[in-house]
Parts: sequence; C-alpha cells; structure tokens
Amino acid sequence: MPRRAETPLRVRFAETDAQGVVYHANHLVYFEVARGEFLREGGWAYEALAAAGTFFVVAEARVTYRAPLRYDDAIVVTTRVGEVRTRSCTFEYEIRRGDTVVATGTTAHVCVDREGRAAPLPESMRAWLAG
Amino acid sequence: MPRRAETPLRVRFAETDAQGVVYHANHLVYFEVARGEFLREGGWAYEALAAAGTFFVVAEARVTYRAPLRYDDAIVVTTRVGEVRTRSCTFEYEIRRGDTVVATGTTAHVCVDREGRAAPLPESMRAWLAG
Amino acid sequence: MPRRAETPLRVRFAETDAQGVVYHANHLVYFEVARGEFLREGGWAYEALAAAGTFFVVAEARVTYRAPLRYDDAIVVTTRVGEVRTRSCTFEYEIRRGDTVVATGTTAHVCVDREGRAAPLPESMRAWLAG
Amino acid sequence: MPRRAETPLRVRFAETDAQGVVYHANHLVYFEVARGEFLREGGWAYEALAAAGTFFVVAEARVTYRAPLRYDDAIVVTTRVGEVRTRSCTFEYEIRRGDTVVATGTTAHVCVDREGRAAPLPESMRAWLAG
Repeated sequence: MPRRAETPLRVRFAETDAQGVVYHANHLVYFEVARGEFLREGGWAYEALAAAGTFFVVAEARVTYRAPLRYDDAIVVTTRVGEVRTRSCTFEYEIRRGDTVVATGTTAHVCVDREGRAAPLPESMRAWLAG
Repeated sequence: MPRRAETPLRVRFAETDAQGVVYHANHLVYFEVARGEFLREGGWAYEALAAAGTFFVVAEARVTYRAPLRYDDAIVVTTRVGEVRTRSCTFEYEIRRGDTVVATGTTAHVCVDREGRAAPLPESMRAWLAG
Repeated sequence: MPRRAETPLRVRFAETDAQGVVYHANHLVYFEVARGEFLREGGWAYEALAAAGTFFVVAEARVTYRAPLRYDDAIVVTTRVGEVRTRSCTFEYEIRRGDTVVATGTTAHVCVDREGRAAPLPESMRAWLAG
Repeated sequence: MPRRAETPLRVRFAETDAQGVVYHANHLVYFEVARGEFLREGGWAYEALAAAGTFFVVAEARVTYRAPLRYDDAIVVTTRVGEVRTRSCTFEYEIRRGDTVVATGTTAHVCVDREGRAAPLPESMRAWLAG
C-alpha cells in the first residue's frame, strides 16, 4: 500500500495575487511543505539526510488547477508516493478545500550526492517509500 | 509561424534556496514574466485586457528542470505560443543560460470573464496568437 | 493590558536562500501571518472587515534580525498591539526559536475605505485593539 | 560624495496580492535587487566576495510605504550608501514611479566570515563605499 499523509495549511495573504486568488506558483510550495512534513514524520528529516550526504533535486513538476484558492482558505494537501526507482522517485498531490479538489499535481525527484551527481536512494528509504 | 519572444532575466537572491540554487517554483514566475512581456509587446497588456473584461486563469503548468540556476545567473526565457483554442491557449517555454537549456515547460490558460466563467478569447487576440 | 497572541510556524524550504538561512523579506510574511491569525481569532477576520468596507494598508515596517533561521526551524511569533489611533495602529512582533529571540519588528497600518482613502478604524475594533 | 545607482524594474504579477497592489515584503526584494546590481557594477559581485570569504547578513530593514504599486508598473530604485563602519554599513533606498516616490527605506548589513562571525569589511570595499 503506497504511503500517504495529509497536511493542513491555511492560505497566506502573501500567496495571493491581484486576481484575488493564490498565485499559481505557490501550489508548488504547498506540495513541498506537504512533502517535507510527510518525509519528516516518516523519519526522513531533511537535515539528517543532508548530514548523510543525501539530497534531492526536483526534476519535474506538474500542477493541474481546478478551482481558485483565496486568502484564509483552509486546505489539506494529500501526499502519496508515486514511483520509486533506484535513483529517483515521484510524489502525487491533491489539494482540497472541504470536499472540493482545487488542484492536483506530481513532482519527480532525483537523488544526488554532495557534488550533485545522481546517486541511488538509500536502501532503507527506498523500502520505506515503497511501503 | 508561431509567435515567440525572448526575455532576458537575472536570477535574484530572493529566488534561491538553501541548496544554493533557484527554488523550483520560481521557474513558473520566470515563465509568467516572459509571457507577460511577450503579450504586452504584442499589444495585449494585462490592464487593457482586464479593462475589456478579459482575464486568463492558469489551468495547468509543467516544468522540466535540466540544470540548476544560481544567484546572478543571466538567463533568457523563450516563449512560444502552443495551441490556440476557442476558450484556451497554451504557451511553451525554454530557459537558457548561455547555450545550456536549464528548464523547459508549458502552461495552459483558460479565458474567463469578470465573473470567472469560461469565455471565448477575443477574436483578434486569437488570430494574433495563431500567428 | 495590550492584547497579544502567539503563533507557531515552521520555516519552509521556499523561504530559505543561498546563504542557507531564511531570506530577510520573509520575516515580514511571518509577521503578517501572525497578525492575521491574531485578528481572526479576535473576531476581525479579513473577509468580514473587507465586506464592511474596512481595509488596512501597511504604512511602515521594521525588522531587526538577531539570529539566523534555517529550514524546518520551529518558531513562535508573538504579536502585540502597539499604538492605536483614530485612523491607524501599530503592531509589535517577536520571533523566537525556543528561548532565542531571532527577530523583532513593528508594522504600522492605516485604515482605508474601498476607494483607498484614509478612514477611521471601526469604533468596536479600536476598543478591542486597545484592550 | 556618497555613491549611488539607479535600477529600473518592472512589477511582476507574482509580487502583487489580493488587494491588487505589491505585497509589502516585496519592497525589500526590490531593495536587494538594486543593492546587488549597485555592488556588482561597482566591482563587488557576490560570487567574488563569497570566494574571498566575505559575506553580509542583514541586521535591520525599514520600509516606509507612500503609494501603492501595481502590476506592470515601471519603477526605479535609487540606492545610496549610508553609513560605513568597520564591520557594517547601511544603504538607503527610494522607489519612484515617474515622479512619485512610492517607498523609501534603509537596510543595515554586518560583514561576516565563512563561519558567520562579524568581520571587518575589506579595506578596499570600505574605501569604495565611502566614495
């Protein structure tokens, strides 16, 4: 069963734009906050991974926008593990406000070492991600 | 021949993150700055469109990241019109630093009226976009 | 006794910069998130104020940075009401990580109507702010 | 005579908020872009300073907001050197749109070494800043 987590967030005024809605790049920030929390709660805190020389770079990102988000909206970001490969993995996201799905998306990440060269994911992390 | 434009930008310190590179959501900002300049220079300034009740909402965005960007990097964003439909259109982007393609991407936009309902693109704009 | 509130936040990766710390403009975002929550919990939600034609514009902002903030740091923003005048008010902030004060600051706000003209704060709000 | 520079910028849509104006934290970004360009053109590029182990951290920032800025506004940021001390310096800024001063501000910076300890500004840089 693929792992997943739910992260509640509230839209900040700084994230809105002159059309009165959340500026579209900020959905990627919501994804990242949710992904970071998901990994931290799973025992894969950024700092510990970095200390071990394991970093991730974003290789691809996609967002589909279904409904506008406004200031103060309470949202929940669901994060799911997608594909897990030797040197990369993907995550899938869904942002909901109540019962409304306001956006979905995916991000792909490549594991790199301190010099930025592609490297295998730590075996234990890969096993955990694969659920 | 599809229309295109080239927009030079320089990476701001505010756009970098703790990995020393441009935070991945900011590529969508670069796309938007380039698209805005492309449209403004073509005679489709945001303010004039808004005054006429024509707005665009982002329906989808994709970015493929090929190389990291760093503070002070001089980049050029190439914007091309993709598909032009009755109520929507897409744009394609390429970000280069010198000869290196650092990212590519696409965005899809739906034309809406003042109430946010899908509406046809102004005929003259559609003709211009189609080149 | 002046009103105050404490707002817990966690530093996002998007808020860091290439020096590995939170980019200095983001402290103003933390202040704003804390101020918004403080007011919302006090019954002065943005939307309700806006519906009544009451808006606030930032007239001045000051931040003193005492210690760097890093990704994932858990912080608490304390918001206090400063001066309350007929058409304006100020807030004072302190950001702490554990026992360390990492930043302090103030913001000044002018009340404006829908047309952006300076206007008196609603009497009930002024009384509430004054504690 | 104190050194100064003028940096033209155009307001990005990403920088606006739901009140239809530039979100107030972004004025600090404009200051920083202008300061960076001012220093780079003076021969003090960030990368060269960093390679020599010279970094600056922001110790204080102040902004006074005089008029709203909107999407696509063409602005000019004037940067002036303020005080120059052994281990710190200040800059003063003015943002204008045409003849209108829309914001003014100051930032204070402390010179630090690679370990983040306060350090004297390089003598040649201090002389240059002092004009």
